[in-house]
Amino acid sequence: MERLPHPLTNAALSQEADLTERYAAVRAHSLALAASLSPEDCAVQSMPDASPIKWHLAHTSWFFETVILSRRSGYRPFDARFAYLFNSYYEALGPRHPRPRRGLITRPALDEVLAWRRHVDAAMARACADPALTDLILLGLNHEQQHQELMLTDIKHAFFCNPLLPAYSESPLWEQCGLPSGQTALPPSPPAGPADTEREKPCWRSHPGGIVEIGHDGRGFAFDNEGPRHPVLLRPFRIAARPVSNAEYAAFIADGGYRNPQFWLSDGWAMVQAEGWDAPLYWLEDDDGSARKQQCIFTLSGVRPPDPDAPVTHVSFFEAAAYAASAGKRLPTEFEWEAASPSFPHGAVWEWTRSSYDPYPGFRPFDGVAAEYNGKFMVGQIVLRGGSVATPPGHARPSYRNFFPAQARWQFSGIRLAEDA
Amino acid sequence: MERLPHPLTNAALSQEADLTERYAAVRAHSLALAASLSPEDCAVQSMPDASPIKWHLAHTSWFFETVILSRRSGYRPFDARFAYLFNSYYEALGPRHPRPRRGLITRPALDEVLAWRRHVDAAMARACADPALTDLILLGLNHEQQHQELMLTDIKHAFFCNPLLPAYSESPLWEQCGLPSGQTALPPSPPAGPADTEREKPCWRSHPGGIVEIGHDGRGFAFDNEGPRHPVLLRPFRIAARPVSNAEYAAFIADGGYRNPQFWLSDGWAMVQAEGWDAPLYWLEDDDGSARKQQCIFTLSGVRPPDPDAPVTHVSFFEAAAYAASAGKRLPTEFEWEAASPSFPHGAVWEWTRSSYDPYPGFRPFDGVAAEYNGKFMVGQIVLRGGSVATPPGHARPSYRNFFPAQARWQFSGIRLAEDA
Amino acid sequence: MERLPHPLTNAALSQEADLTERYAAVRAHSLALAASLSPEDCAVQSMPDASPIKWHLAHTSWFFETVILSRRSGYRPFDARFAYLFNSYYEALGPRHPRPRRGLITRPALDEVLAWRRHVDAAMARACADPALTDLILLGLNHEQQHQELMLTDIKHAFFCNPLLPAYSESPLWEQCGLPSGQTALPPSPPAGPADTEREKPCWRSHPGGIVEIGHDGRGFAFDNEGPRHPVLLRPFRIAARPVSNAEYAAFIADGGYRNPQFWLSDGWAMVQAEGWDAPLYWLEDDDGSARKQQCIFTLSGVRPPDPDAPVTHVSFFEAAAYAASAGKRLPTEFEWEAASPSFPHGAVWEWTRSSYDPYPGFRPFDGVAAEYNGKFMVGQIVLRGGSVATPPGHARPSYRNFFPAQARWQFSGIRLAEDA
Amino acid sequence: MERLPHPLTNAALSQEADLTERYAAVRAHSLALAASLSPEDCAVQSMPDASPIKWHLAHTSWFFETVILSRRSGYRPFDARFAYLFNSYYEALGPRHPRPRRGLITRPALDEVLAWRRHVDAAMARACADPALTDLILLGLNHEQQHQELMLTDIKHAFFCNPLLPAYSESPLWEQCGLPSGQTALPPSPPAGPADTEREKPCWRSHPGGIVEIGHDGRGFAFDNEGPRHPVLLRPFRIAARPVSNAEYAAFIADGGYRNPQFWLSDGWAMVQAEGWDAPLYWLEDDDGSARKQQCIFTLSGVRPPDPDAPVTHVSFFEAAAYAASAGKRLPTEFEWEAASPSFPHGAVWEWTRSSYDPYPGFRPFDGVAAEYNGKFMVGQIVLRGGSVATPPGHARPSYRNFFPAQARWQFSGIRLAEDA
Repeated sequence: MERLPHPLTNAALSQEADLTERYAAVRAHSLALAASLSPEDCAVQSMPDASPIKWHLAHTSWFFETVILSRRSGYRPFDARFAYLFNSYYEALGPRHPRPRRGLITRPALDEVLAWRRHVDAAMARACADPALTDLILLGLNHEQQHQELMLTDIKHAFFCNPLLPAYSESPLWEQCGLPSGQTALPPSPPAGPADTEREKPCWRSHPGGIVEIGHDGRGFAFDNEGPRHPVLLRPFRIAARPVSNAEYAAFIADGGYRNPQFWLSDGWAMVQAEGWDAPLYWLEDDDGSARKQQCIFTLSGVRPPDPDAPVTHVSFFEAAAYAASAGKRLPTEFEWEAASPSFPHGAVWEWTRSSYDPYPGFRPFDGVAAEYNGKFMVGQIVLRGGSVATPPGHARPSYRNFFPAQARWQFSGIRLAEDA
Repeated sequence: MERLPHPLTNAALSQEADLTERYAAVRAHSLALAASLSPEDCAVQSMPDASPIKWHLAHTSWFFETVILSRRSGYRPFDARFAYLFNSYYEALGPRHPRPRRGLITRPALDEVLAWRRHVDAAMARACADPALTDLILLGLNHEQQHQELMLTDIKHAFFCNPLLPAYSESPLWEQCGLPSGQTALPPSPPAGPADTEREKPCWRSHPGGIVEIGHDGRGFAFDNEGPRHPVLLRPFRIAARPVSNAEYAAFIADGGYRNPQFWLSDGWAMVQAEGWDAPLYWLEDDDGSARKQQCIFTLSGVRPPDPDAPVTHVSFFEAAAYAASAGKRLPTEFEWEAASPSFPHGAVWEWTRSSYDPYPGFRPFDGVAAEYNGKFMVGQIVLRGGSVATPPGHARPSYRNFFPAQARWQFSGIRLAEDA
Repeated sequence: MERLPHPLTNAALSQEADLTERYAAVRAHSLALAASLSPEDCAVQSMPDASPIKWHLAHTSWFFETVILSRRSGYRPFDARFAYLFNSYYEALGPRHPRPRRGLITRPALDEVLAWRRHVDAAMARACADPALTDLILLGLNHEQQHQELMLTDIKHAFFCNPLLPAYSESPLWEQCGLPSGQTALPPSPPAGPADTEREKPCWRSHPGGIVEIGHDGRGFAFDNEGPRHPVLLRPFRIAARPVSNAEYAAFIADGGYRNPQFWLSDGWAMVQAEGWDAPLYWLEDDDGSARKQQCIFTLSGVRPPDPDAPVTHVSFFEAAAYAASAGKRLPTEFEWEAASPSFPHGAVWEWTRSSYDPYPGFRPFDGVAAEYNGKFMVGQIVLRGGSVATPPGHARPSYRNFFPAQARWQFSGIRLAEDA
Repeated sequence: MERLPHPLTNAALSQEADLTERYAAVRAHSLALAASLSPEDCAVQSMPDASPIKWHLAHTSWFFETVILSRRSGYRPFDARFAYLFNSYYEALGPRHPRPRRGLITRPALDEVLAWRRHVDAAMARACADPALTDLILLGLNHEQQHQELMLTDIKHAFFCNPLLPAYSESPLWEQCGLPSGQTALPPSPPAGPADTEREKPCWRSHPGGIVEIGHDGRGFAFDNEGPRHPVLLRPFRIAARPVSNAEYAAFIADGGYRNPQFWLSDGWAMVQAEGWDAPLYWLEDDDGSARKQQCIFTLSGVRPPDPDAPVTHVSFFEAAAYAASAGKRLPTEFEWEAASPSFPHGAVWEWTRSSYDPYPGFRPFDGVAAEYNGKFMVGQIVLRGGSVATPPGHARPSYRNFFPAQARWQFSGIRLAEDA
């Protein structure tokens, strides 16, 4: 089972590359992601949770400028007013433009934001040679990679708000490997055989439990929320070898999954009622007038028929937990997931765990300006593990803790089941 | 007292021009208004009440295509999907994209909307030669002119939402005549003399009352809401020869006008409290750190010092009524305004009247598709009269009934006082 | 055609009665209206527009205490804190408890409010003998009568919010004359005969138009908004001799009236969509499990079958205007209504006019404290004329201007048609 | 250090009492809590999170009737319609009256609800003799005790919404022991001595960490969410011997705690901004006109000066976490709290932990109807431990998991600090 190359893959993206090369590669990746978009596409904000592509391109430059360059003698900011416009949430770095109004910033134009990127890149070329800055630069690059995934999730949501349902990319390169359509068959469907049975019964991996070490081991970059590494005591459990598929999830829908409160957490059932949820985000019915409606899915390549064997994507934690309950299973905790992660392929969809996003024992935020990076969000969210087709190559790792509110559906989020042994 | 030429004035805009020439001139005027804007500027929607410039450019084409061209044999719509995207509020013409989501339509791109305009214009060139269509074409042109004013009010609001406060135009042409800065000294300040006294005491024009004829007299184009012409019985009254000036309004503010409920209608006072109103929209304080803050005003030419003699602009009906109450005066009814209109210059700001927007006795909407044009909005709004610096040349007339909700402030709206004789 | 006596009618309620007797009768009427209610019933507030019965009982005492008694030497307020709790909207009389939170005032208890009423009544007995106070006392009594109608509309709404749908009164007295059930057959149905035809075709009364005098003539009490009396020029018109009936309105519903936007004002159609309106407020379907659902109506006497000949009640202005449009008619203006009012019986339902609530020319508010009584509400509302089964006997008159927002439905409001001659 | 007797303490409330006696005692306790309240007090609902006292009295009867009595032959429900009105959140038990509208149920009257209680109690007397029902009856009694605490928190909130700020009880019995004023000095302040120093430095209890058993041990009643008992691996830590006091919290406020975002979780800081929080709920400033404002606190006994040594109460999780951060400490996890609980007195305030409310490994909900009791709320909430002055005697235990959203403040919730060893 092999993961196909990402259309934009570049050897310099790996963690082993030279810092200067890696900086260039990561920064270029952001531009490549925006290459097919018009200035209008780059300016729109479809909901308060999402940001314009232009804002992502600007904010990632803001990070390098504010956290690194502005503290170096001789650096002249490109435009002093951008500090206010493109700060995301750093209280210690002064006031900022309100998040729900990011789509109103038609000026600076996209061209100007790109010029700012070049201005920052030129100054960063010198900074990369300063070993004292390596950690901050690595943080800046990993930060930019997080925004690269958001660029794809946010433009997908924006295009979905347009009745024309435009495609993000028609490039055969993207189509070939299916990335980042969100319906990628990764990991691939099982080999030919009793397909239906296979669909019903994913293989299970057993874990004996006991004391396991959880958290990043300190080799290479990690975010502060991945540490400190610490022992956790687990009971024996089993975990599914692959995520829940579109076909399996469609059966849940057909069985009345969205109409039966017994499977749902209370807040989840309230969302189903209030929002009229009856399928994952981006699932559409192709109303061609015939008696039988055809299921189809909005992807970054436009509207497509679903791949039954591909992991179901764009479900909330509430839907993930309801699916698990209906199957008589549960979601794994983030500790179980991490402990068992060598046992199964992952990386096609972010996988909701049954763990709230709380600090690890002994958690310490990054020092200095980056102290606000992760810690202040540690309440009211759910941990996701794994990585998705939209995650930049080389960005995620088994100790990686992604987190979103339980109702979020616009990320490439899916479901892996677990059960007590 | 002379009104300076509008920077975009064109003889073909006059009602006397040949229809083909007039069509071309009006359509070109829309493009000229958008000429200084980027695709991003044209795509943004700053609030549900406002629309993107691109939407205005598209919707005005939609009107000609839907109301005229689509009923002509041989016409092929540019893109059948645009009928849904760019219908504004015509229930009889099918479903439509929700108004608050107009800013999410990044596709079609601005270029495509402009191509659509050319496609429509080519077909309309033939339609202009068909005398049976003259009335509908005139309606389409007057409709487009209404949107031309909205283009200016809407982009002004959008730019005001950007902390950079960009200028719509730096062109000296616009600066020279002040158009459409919103602070134009039109009508001009009185000649040198006892200026302060003059500011305090505008001249008053007396009207004897009695039965007057109100409504459009049928010569030339008029909207359905201007008729039928009918007699109205008035009491004697006086009306101010000029609108309330910035200096006069600033004195109202300084006297605590926004802190004294006795001047305000109940709903107006609730708005003052809820929205924190303490000045007209677009009035800013230039916080330069000195003890005395400097008043300035955001205009289409950027942030400027206020012209004390220019009409106050961007006030709501609530503020207009409160100002009048504080001055011991009142607003004129729309009938008084129309009857006295030959007595005073107007056209610098739309003037709030003390008349709710109700139908005239015997009112009949336009026939056919255009029946929804005006009549269905005749509740809960207030009539404004006159025209503003943003009104296209030749568009308004004394019988013209503009209307907005009492709390609207983003139009070029001002105040003229009246009193019982 | 005779109006049956109101169950609580008392000769002393008439305008001709001695002031002391009239004071006693009006105050007693408020208590009689609350007599069948529990302390819990009297405390509840079902929506921000409605007030608890206890609040009405308190506020009407507050009016006499604040406006009259507190200015008399020697008067000691019952409880100084009540001035804050029971001020409704008088800015000049100090701060007040927020309207949407009136239902949270469990203390003072109902008993204490009743004790306050007795305290005020004792002091007012002396005040009634002071001729200088007559006008203010009459205002206070008419004010209390307005709240008597609101007591009935507000408790009806509160009971409708209770799934048990309790009856306000089971008293045979109320049932006999149908008052105030809201479905009273007043004016009574036509005599036996071709009933269906009669239902379809109400008689019309013609009015020749011309200059008519509008407004109160100064004989007896009137509110400030009924003046000044002034001439209005009318065109000839016809007005229906009776309000639209339940049967007629049911036919409008059956004909798809709530599904056809062409009949509706734009804001009205938006309400239909947003609120799911498909019938007047308080119309219910009795789901008895049979194939054919039975229409029934919630009244102050509980759930009852509708009287087809009784005036339709509890419709908004939007519904009234849509009904008129579907019938090819229109609503009368308030001037037409007043001019023609001697031509037809009225008083069963408040009748929506096609007039926004604007001031009459030369309008002057009451002097002093009562200046806020009416004038500050003169924007964004619609005039209703006539009076209803819930209006206290002797309270209304042809010049009376009731007013509510266009979407209000919890008043006893109905429809009378008009048309151009 | 001794806890004073609860004013309503009754030996029959203990877990050791005979079931019939215990049933009677628990049910009587609910009535005793409502004894000082009027029918109006019992009917009001001050916010969607709170319920009327009458609703609590009814819902607890509903529980016995629905879960136990309705399944016994020969039982006749008191009123079949109450099943709809007083179901709280049990989807499996049919539809129900919407929670935010509980305050609109003026009928049934309080008297009728009390009659229902007697009807249920009579039938339960027989049920208590059936050993097969013991577990369900114990659940019903513990359920009723949870509502007894909510009766106190909810009426306190309702009275706080009344500008008169009435007292729940003036009884000397309640005053003597301070219960349930919410400012009780429990555990008592340290003995005379260097008080200020003592206030600054609570004693710390050390815990060595290691594997500890968490969860209920199965002896006596417990809720399903307290199990299964399971081993948890802890690091060494220290925990404060007493909760944070009013004086300590006041110092945090004086030091700008509510103005410094660095102490706050991101969602907490957003609440501070949006709600204008600057002190715990119920802290007031006594504006007596003097220069120095006097702090006071609204309690169930009315407005009182704060006891500096009493535990701070009515803080949200956000405030608890911010206080801890400002002190350079943290909150304990629920596992640390439970493991260390024999080391310190508790029971004066519910103590926010740094644990999200997730299921224990192997969690199984109650069987049958009670399956919805706890499990479906296990997302988006925070665990509190300990018990409060409002908790009925004998109800809580160290394994008890209370839970509320992070922003909730109307519970008797306080702060206990912890730190890494």
